Amino acid sequence: MISPLSGERNLTMLTDLYQLTMANGYLQKGVSEKRAVFDLFYRGSGGYSYAVAAGLEQAVQYLRDLRFEEKDIAYLRSLGIFPENFLERLKSFRFTGDLKAIPEGTIVFPSEPILTVSAPIFEAQIIETALLTIVNHQTLIATTAARLAACTDAKILEFGLRRAQGPDAGTYGARAAYIGGCRSTSNVLAGEMFGIAVAGTHSHSWVMTFPTELEAFEAYAEIYPDNCLLLVDTYDTLKSGVPNAIKVFDRLKAEGHKPIGIRLDSGDLAYLSREARKMLDAAGHVDCKIFASNDIDERVLLALNSQDAKIDVYGIGTKLITSFSNASLGGVYKLCAVEEDGKLVPKIKVSDSHDKTTDPGIKKTVRIYRGGMAAADLICLADETVDTSRPLTVFHPEQTWKRTTFKDFTVKELPVDIIKNGELVYDLPTLEEIGRHHDESKAEFFPEYKRVVNTQYYKVDLSQKLWDLKQELLAESAQS
Amino acid sequence: MISPLSGERNLTMLTDLYQLTMANGYLQKGVSEKRAVFDLFYRGSGGYSYAVAAGLEQAVQYLRDLRFEEKDIAYLRSLGIFPENFLERLKSFRFTGDLKAIPEGTIVFPSEPILTVSAPIFEAQIIETALLTIVNHQTLIATTAARLAACTDAKILEFGLRRAQGPDAGTYGARAAYIGGCRSTSNVLAGEMFGIAVAGTHSHSWVMTFPTELEAFEAYAEIYPDNCLLLVDTYDTLKSGVPNAIKVFDRLKAEGHKPIGIRLDSGDLAYLSREARKMLDAAGHVDCKIFASNDIDERVLLALNSQDAKIDVYGIGTKLITSFSNASLGGVYKLCAVEEDGKLVPKIKVSDSHDKTTDPGIKKTVRIYRGGMAAADLICLADETVDTSRPLTVFHPEQTWKRTTFKDFTVKELPVDIIKNGELVYDLPTLEEIGRHHDESKAEFFPEYKRVVNTQYYKVDLSQKLWDLKQELLAESAQS
Repeated sequence: MISPLSGERNLTMLTDLYQLTMANGYLQKGVSEKRAVFDLFYRGSGGYSYAVAAGLEQAVQYLRDLRFEEKDIAYLRSLGIFPENFLERLKSFRFTGDLKAIPEGTIVFPSEPILTVSAPIFEAQIIETALLTIVNHQTLIATTAARLAACTDAKILEFGLRRAQGPDAGTYGARAAYIGGCRSTSNVLAGEMFGIAVAGTHSHSWVMTFPTELEAFEAYAEIYPDNCLLLVDTYDTLKSGVPNAIKVFDRLKAEGHKPIGIRLDSGDLAYLSREARKMLDAAGHVDCKIFASNDIDERVLLALNSQDAKIDVYGIGTKLITSFSNASLGGVYKLCAVEEDGKLVPKIKVSDSHDKTTDPGIKKTVRIYRGGMAAADLICLADETVDTSRPLTVFHPEQTWKRTTFKDFTVKELPVDIIKNGELVYDLPTLEEIGRHHDESKAEFFPEYKRVVNTQYYKVDLSQKLWDLKQELLAESAQS
Repeated sequence: MISPLSGERNLTMLTDLYQLTMANGYLQKGVSEKRAVFDLFYRGSGGYSYAVAAGLEQAVQYLRDLRFEEKDIAYLRSLGIFPENFLERLKSFRFTGDLKAIPEGTIVFPSEPILTVSAPIFEAQIIETALLTIVNHQTLIATTAARLAACTDAKILEFGLRRAQGPDAGTYGARAAYIGGCRSTSNVLAGEMFGIAVAGTHSHSWVMTFPTELEAFEAYAEIYPDNCLLLVDTYDTLKSGVPNAIKVFDRLKAEGHKPIGIRLDSGDLAYLSREARKMLDAAGHVDCKIFASNDIDERVLLALNSQDAKIDVYGIGTKLITSFSNASLGGVYKLCAVEEDGKLVPKIKVSDSHDKTTDPGIKKTVRIYRGGMAAADLICLADETVDTSRPLTVFHPEQTWKRTTFKDFTVKELPVDIIKNGELVYDLPTLEEIGRHHDESKAEFFPEYKRVVNTQYYKVDLSQKLWDLKQELLAESAQS
């Protein structure tokens, strides 16, 4: 399913000015059609030990919809910095290159190319910004969702739309949260666009518009006898809210309906949920669920677990939809090879910081499994094959004395072909399939790798060949 | 100028499910056309001592474009919770109410209604979520931009698109950053949509695709002789980048061009900028500007100031476009009055937390000036008039013994009528006008109120009438 990111809305101009000044530069220097390969990946310094790849579907849609319109050309001409031959070239601008990607929902690690673009440098440059915007955002939110999900066995409802950084952040954020494991949303547009289950109850203002809380609850139950979830904290949760809810549930049950439960939105959620659970159970409403909300984040979830809170569903808003504790993934798009004399030559970007020094050449990530569980990832050159019939020794790319040898192991290559010569060659999965794929990918990792506090380090090593190439280019660069 | 937020894209469904379940509830109870008044404001606990109102233009556009389409009705029907008379009512759904707002660009404070909606509760409820999404986001980014601008005399270029939380966050974020004082952007779409000045140079990859840095600079200068801004840190800023840039600038100058300057993107920006300034000046390029970027935020700006960095323009990305240090404004939309027996009756939401207890009734914010400078804000009931011919005593709404009496003062009412009975009655200003209005609003405040560290508390008091009303409703609520 392709969702309507575009339509009358055209994102072709969603790029940084310097992409256009550089593209024009390449054109004027006669090198615009030279092939270049770029990797999109995130850095470990960005704060996430692992991430959940997301945003590919919208990235594909963006690439397929690329069209500069007459008004765009006119605007660029008005800037007075672009010659006519460049503007002419933009009129026929399409993506004619190749795209490889790790499928959405897959657990990925720092430095692993999530997308790899191979295209004439003119194209590869212009598309950098939007690809980053789309993939950075959705991968960020999917990752935050997965981290929250790793903190609780309860279900999580995404309901942050009102605090999202604009409509796209709310809607594509809900999509990404779904991928990361938060499988329902309050966002009706996201429900319609992506088929995510929508959920919700009523607000305090509903209660306030009735003379009493009981009347407000009765009115709600009358209209939604089979979807009755009541917000119980408008006045006093345990003295008024829960007893009133129980009165209403008693009547619903007597009439043959199955009330859903209550929502707590303030106060001490551990204490209130335990007390509310006792009251509901004592009244025979053992099937009634307890929903809770109010600035929930990873730390609050861990604290509530440790105090035996009786919460079945968390509603998480701000902290999920903005990834409040770390509002940016910091993904980058780096040149790894460029055509010289008809051949693709590996390139490296050297930096004082190891984290900012890139891995050169065209690469792929291979996941190594032992007993069906992920044991390490190996970033290899694209033309390498890992021989599973022989022992495989991997080593830390900096602290190279740290070595591990695998004997009984299997491997899986993570990236797949998405676009070839501008044509889609990949069957885009439904969001439900992506969610299932995430669940499978997640199940391949021991819990210690997914824990949000003191997360165990997961090995992401370079193949000997890639490591050698990197050392060679680093040595060359030190000499020049 | 109305920007194309909608078009084929329709945001009518951008709401929380519970708004629709409540709207249906009001319809089924026969109270859907009762008038209700809601205030949109932010709370001091959200972390901002002041904010810059933004997003009104898009909020207006959203309200004017509201239309449920056939496919939306069909989707809602498929949920199996809505009766046909509700779906029928949605088909003719329009905004027929009134909207008052504090104009975009104005400095506002916690609890001050930025928007006030008065409409049939059916309408006022459904629009809550999208109004919050739009105004929360743009006000957040405009505020962050203003806080960054308060930390430096240098200009700020917004260039965070690649790290924005989706396309809207990048584009409407650039608009909001402009309002808050960051008056140029790298985002070409924002430039085209809003007429913001676009800026940019080249990336490290441009330098890497040429055999040497000097050749890369020469090629760039040849193509952009009058827009030559060179990124000098690809290899070694002071040993290679700056000397190569000077060679290129010497030639440009000899040919009658005026080079723009250099950009630093790594290393110690204080030291490098001072050294680069000396080198440029010694070579006679005193007009060449120094741009700097690399994870700049408020703290970095203050630190660089204190170390006499010679930076003319900062490029700020992630920390501005995501408001990284505080990724949510936390604005809310609260019922303040509801129609009972044909009259609007004030309502209060009581909470244990003073910050979460609302101000009842229909209100307006009045700014008090002394010697032309803002001295305090007074939140009054809408029908009050402040008599400037007599001394005015204001007092802290909690610590009521803190009193100030104004003698020589003038006042200005901040909110203006935007929409009446569904019709736009406000002449939407251009973005440039909004920017000028922000500059004027900002100039009314002493620097100590705008400082980002240890900000001086600015008085926001309630009028005696509003305070009395609030006490009365609090007392009633305590009895019930």
